[in-house]
Amino acid sequence: MSFSPLIQQLVTALRCLPGVGPKSAQRMAFHLLERDRNAALELSAALAQAAEEVSECQQCRTLSETDICELCASLSRDRSSLCVLESPMDVVAIEQTNSFAGVYFVLGGHLSPIDGVGPDDIGISQLLERIAQGEVKEVIIATNPTVEGDATAHYIAEQLKRTELKVTRIAHGVPVGGELEYVDGGTLAHALAGRRLL
Amino acid sequence: MSFSPLIQQLVTALRCLPGVGPKSAQRMAFHLLERDRNAALELSAALAQAAEEVSECQQCRTLSETDICELCASLSRDRSSLCVLESPMDVVAIEQTNSFAGVYFVLGGHLSPIDGVGPDDIGISQLLERIAQGEVKEVIIATNPTVEGDATAHYIAEQLKRTELKVTRIAHGVPVGGELEYVDGGTLAHALAGRRLL
Repeated sequence: MSFSPLIQQLVTALRCLPGVGPKSAQRMAFHLLERDRNAALELSAALAQAAEEVSECQQCRTLSETDICELCASLSRDRSSLCVLESPMDVVAIEQTNSFAGVYFVLGGHLSPIDGVGPDDIGISQLLERIAQGEVKEVIIATNPTVEGDATAHYIAEQLKRTELKVTRIAHGVPVGGELEYVDGGTLAHALAGRRLL
Repeated sequence: MSFSPLIQQLVTALRCLPGVGPKSAQRMAFHLLERDRNAALELSAALAQAAEEVSECQQCRTLSETDICELCASLSRDRSSLCVLESPMDVVAIEQTNSFAGVYFVLGGHLSPIDGVGPDDIGISQLLERIAQGEVKEVIIATNPTVEGDATAHYIAEQLKRTELKVTRIAHGVPVGGELEYVDGGTLAHALAGRRLL
């Protein structure tokens, strides 16, 4: 069964969304066309506007439609503490914890020589420039706890070795609310190695 | 954490898609903006074009951007057999079985007096007109096996009582590949009542 060309085009286009397979795309297309054309038009406009107008914050490289994002522009943030992250989504995740009052720097990825992603591609020089301005006292490296994320963290730490900055890495360990039994070995090993005095 | 206005607008708009909650919408928005702006623009265009140009087939009421849909226009379909369905998605489902060569009529819903959905809202008069043209010899009612779908099926059968048409309902029974043990009572009762000679 082939759909009519426009419906097929919509189903195909919906597949670009992460987690949307052929069946979901089909359900979405028919749902919008059968019941909610206004929502379809609103979504169309929101997509176009965001894709055209959202760019990067010139200071922290997170997604923002203004030159300087809200967080970087805010006067209530502590500019001495800089948290380095892989993606704008991570900024959202950390902000939601309400436990960090500093500022951010978004790499937009991690080092990956195999894929040809080097220091320039993840804004390392921009990060070093930002740090050279002198306001930052502590750099908290919160790249993902993966092989690439760890390698990126080590690379950044290496670059900052000769500065007087405090360079830290977020703790790896047992997730809160988890059960030891179900935690993988690597995480448990990290949790043991990173143990703290009670 | 509030996103920047345009990102928030996109996240909210993505929630109109069935099965997309706040977290998925956020993931989709960031994925598109971080990695795939072209896909976002293509999706935007596909949504707008489909929402504006896709309408109903004047003969079978399925979704179509042409006045008469491909299936209704096809010369290879058997016009004596008319399958009545609740939604355009059902047409796709039946077509995918490759076991029906007739034509379709899409009600676009089912009778539901509580929600104020009467015969006029599901195109019953259009269905009767179509049948009155005389080409149809059998009407296969394939509304969903729900209370409302069954009620709608009975209503249509009632309307066609005085015609010479063969009016049938698709079989309810045990799904192929299922195990009796896990089939619900209502379905089993239907399967027994609808038993056939081997």
